[in-house]
Amino acid sequence: MSPRQMTRPGGRSARVQESVHAAVRALEAEQGRAALTVPLVAARAGVTPSTIYRRWGDLQELLSDVAVERLRPEAPPADHGALRTDLETWAEQFLEEMASPPGRAYLRDALAGDPDGSHAGQCSAYAAEQVDVILARAADRGEQVPDADIVMDHIVAPMIYRLVFRPGPMDASYARGLVEATLSGLMPPR
Amino acid sequence: MSPRQMTRPGGRSARVQESVHAAVRALEAEQGRAALTVPLVAARAGVTPSTIYRRWGDLQELLSDVAVERLRPEAPPADHGALRTDLETWAEQFLEEMASPPGRAYLRDALAGDPDGSHAGQCSAYAAEQVDVILARAADRGEQVPDADIVMDHIVAPMIYRLVFRPGPMDASYARGLVEATLSGLMPPR
Repeated sequence: MSPRQMTRPGGRSARVQESVHAAVRALEAEQGRAALTVPLVAARAGVTPSTIYRRWGDLQELLSDVAVERLRPEAPPADHGALRTDLETWAEQFLEEMASPPGRAYLRDALAGDPDGSHAGQCSAYAAEQVDVILARAADRGEQVPDADIVMDHIVAPMIYRLVFRPGPMDASYARGLVEATLSGLMPPR
Repeated sequence: MSPRQMTRPGGRSARVQESVHAAVRALEAEQGRAALTVPLVAARAGVTPSTIYRRWGDLQELLSDVAVERLRPEAPPADHGALRTDLETWAEQFLEEMASPPGRAYLRDALAGDPDGSHAGQCSAYAAEQVDVILARAADRGEQVPDADIVMDHIVAPMIYRLVFRPGPMDASYARGLVEATLSGLMPPR
């Protein structure tokens, strides 16, 4: 996280963050993205514009922060009792969410207002946490599991790289193909 | 490419682009990034500020355009007479260039001023062109070659994903490991 955001959870700092984020979401829903300005967000959130400038730098960084928060997973990945099914289900859902128009917009916003890379790092950390849960469960069941970095490199990275750098459609079978390649091709033989 | 940039090669448009890009590079080298403004670039390039605003939108998009141009490969990949060696050598060099401080800055700039994704797409197209040359040479020699999408997904994507989303060092052995995984694990058996 950037120094501006290394604030104690709870307390006034957390309340300011929550009210400013809520103001951005409400104004965006009511008036559209193009209408957003720092003074407008500040008035809606009940803070001064300088509070926003001091904490977020500018509107683009604030929008990036809000986008990252929207990319936070709402629940742990589903447990289907088998590594391959869990990875397939998670990868399909992850792709569906990230490739949706809101998902693409959040990803674009997250990268656009991110001068030190901390917001991109947080996006990646969310995916890595979900992957870790899936792999830990599989290991607990006694399944052979790939290294988490293998999953990030060969399942998560190709999907996000295509979303950011290579225009074109991707579907659930693409996500399943990455899982197949990773589990069959990249794991050490049993 | 965005509509603004679908201009006929050669002629006035190309001369304007070249002089504006050269002005950005010169001013950045002399005075540093923070000093750049559209009026300053325009004066150095001998064009009006409105020429720059009309063609590039704003300073961030201009800097993104300049960054993409700097990421253009200068030569075809080296030919060592074998697919694995060619891919290893290219992947190591690609990683070294992209992970260098200037490479990271160009990649960040390219993504920051890219509202329609066309600059990111051009970065990816440069890598894909180099990969295509390597694969076509190997096929001409009678070697079995992976699909170009496999190389993009499992060699290029992991490196770029880590550069953008996952802070941390990467070295030549990481690039070679991706080639190994791709050729040994992901290619159909002979």
